[in-house]
Amino acid sequence: MKVRPLGSRLLIKPITEEKRTEGGIVLPDTAKEKPMKAEVIAVGNIEDSDIEINVGDKVIFSKYSGTEIKIEDEDYIIIDLDDILAKIED
Amino acid sequence: MKVRPLGSRLLIKPITEEKRTEGGIVLPDTAKEKPMKAEVIAVGNIEDSDIEINVGDKVIFSKYSGTEIKIEDEDYIIIDLDDILAKIED
Amino acid sequence: MKVRPLGSRLLIKPITEEKRTEGGIVLPDTAKEKPMKAEVIAVGNIEDSDIEINVGDKVIFSKYSGTEIKIEDEDYIIIDLDDILAKIED
Amino acid sequence: MKVRPLGSRLLIKPITEEKRTEGGIVLPDTAKEKPMKAEVIAVGNIEDSDIEINVGDKVIFSKYSGTEIKIEDEDYIIIDLDDILAKIED
Amino acid sequence: MKVRPLGSRLLIKPITEEKRTEGGIVLPDTAKEKPMKAEVIAVGNIEDSDIEINVGDKVIFSKYSGTEIKIEDEDYIIIDLDDILAKIED
Amino acid sequence: MKVRPLGSRLLIKPITEEKRTEGGIVLPDTAKEKPMKAEVIAVGNIEDSDIEINVGDKVIFSKYSGTEIKIEDEDYIIIDLDDILAKIED
Amino acid sequence: MKVRPLGSRLLIKPITEEKRTEGGIVLPDTAKEKPMKAEVIAVGNIEDSDIEINVGDKVIFSKYSGTEIKIEDEDYIIIDLDDILAKIED
Repeated sequence: MKVRPLGSRLLIKPITEEKRTEGGIVLPDTAKEKPMKAEVIAVGNIEDSDIEINVGDKVIFSKYSGTEIKIEDEDYIIIDLDDILAKIED
Repeated sequence: MKVRPLGSRLLIKPITEEKRTEGGIVLPDTAKEKPMKAEVIAVGNIEDSDIEINVGDKVIFSKYSGTEIKIEDEDYIIIDLDDILAKIED
Repeated sequence: MKVRPLGSRLLIKPITEEKRTEGGIVLPDTAKEKPMKAEVIAVGNIEDSDIEINVGDKVIFSKYSGTEIKIEDEDYIIIDLDDILAKIED
Repeated sequence: MKVRPLGSRLLIKPITEEKRTEGGIVLPDTAKEKPMKAEVIAVGNIEDSDIEINVGDKVIFSKYSGTEIKIEDEDYIIIDLDDILAKIED
Repeated sequence: MKVRPLGSRLLIKPITEEKRTEGGIVLPDTAKEKPMKAEVIAVGNIEDSDIEINVGDKVIFSKYSGTEIKIEDEDYIIIDLDDILAKIED
Repeated sequence: MKVRPLGSRLLIKPITEEKRTEGGIVLPDTAKEKPMKAEVIAVGNIEDSDIEINVGDKVIFSKYSGTEIKIEDEDYIIIDLDDILAKIED
Repeated sequence: MKVRPLGSRLLIKPITEEKRTEGGIVLPDTAKEKPMKAEVIAVGNIEDSDIEINVGDKVIFSKYSGTEIKIEDEDYIIIDLDDILAKIED
């Protein structure tokens, strides 16, 4: 199943980082902050925008924005380009 | 009875998927999440939009948006094109 | 008395359908859902709109929108064209 | 004293209709619904509008809109043209 | 001290009318309704507007709009031209 | 340290007036009304505006608008030009 | 890891000043006011704006605006250019 975002929307996949406490214990999911990093999976119609963003880019997105969807049991977010705050370059 | 959406609206029919618990039990309707997939039944005047969408397309729509109506005892939603988040391609 | 809607407004007359319970009992008015079907009685100035709508058309309108008025003891609604969701064609 | 409405405003005088109960009793003011009919007393600058409305016209206006004022102990309303829903033609 | 309103604002001085009860008693200030009549004291930059209003004009203004200020122990209001509802002509 | 306001903002310094009760007692700060007079300290980019305002001007500003900041232990406000209601000319 | 802000956004690093009580005691973090000074770390696409702002500039920003993010255990804020109130020049 392929999801193609409409309008100036993107399909992104949140990146959850492991988080160890100072004592080295890996925290379970509920103890982590809501992730704000994601990988771009699919891009809608964003040609009118000045912003260049491509599939595979790592981005920081605005917490609580966008719509969470499940595709084949994996969590994704459909989000407007305006709610992508920054690109991450390694 | 035929319903023709006005303006940039669409008539969609939500697709409710069966949901089995891990033990294989089919959950009754109230235990499922609100469906967000739908099939496009009729399309209003969307020619001004960049978005191409046709009768029969499967779409993901923004939960809680649109207006639920009943046609011959079946549930439908009249929804604005802006609230269609993505197209699903199998 | 004739009521002529101003601007992009319409005068519509809600259609209340009888609703029988499964046992065949006709429910009194308060037990029914708010009607969302109406017949167009008069049309204001909607020529600038792409939407074609005429006196006598049956329409679906957005619940709770518009202003209820009484004309010679009958209930009518003055409603903006934007709140007419769809036309019904039999 | 003459009141000249500014901008796209009108000065209207609400028409309160007598309301008899089924038994023929005239209800006092507080038991009536807020009147929504009015006569146009003065018109501001509405030439830019497509709507033609003149002093002496009977209109239906949007309940709770406009500003009530008292002129020589009579109640009037200064209201925007947008809040005039319809004209009444006898 | 002279106050010159900026933008499309006016400086107005509310006119409080004496109000006698039917028995002829003059009511103290707190028992009166908030005044809505005022005299125009100074006018900002309103040339772009279609509305002609001059120092000395008597106006009706929208209750609770504008900002109350005290100049040499007298009460004034700085108010936007949009909140001036009508001119009073004697 | 010099603070240069950005966009159509100004840096102003509120003027607190001493306030004596009728008996001649000077009221402490908390018993005074929030000051609404200020002196203009620095001006951002307001050339596009019709409003002429200069460093040193005394102004009346809209209470509760703007952002209070402390510069070298003195209170200032960064405020948008739109929230400056009037100029005071002595 | 490098974070590149998108649109008219900036990446800024809040400057927390030590704050001593009158008795000379350094207050812990929670007893300080939320910082409003920051250094500009990276700048998005702000060429369309009249405002000139560069990496390394010290700015005052609107409290509670922007989105806090953590990069390599340091706190940063991604903030819209509109929420930068002023530049600080030493």
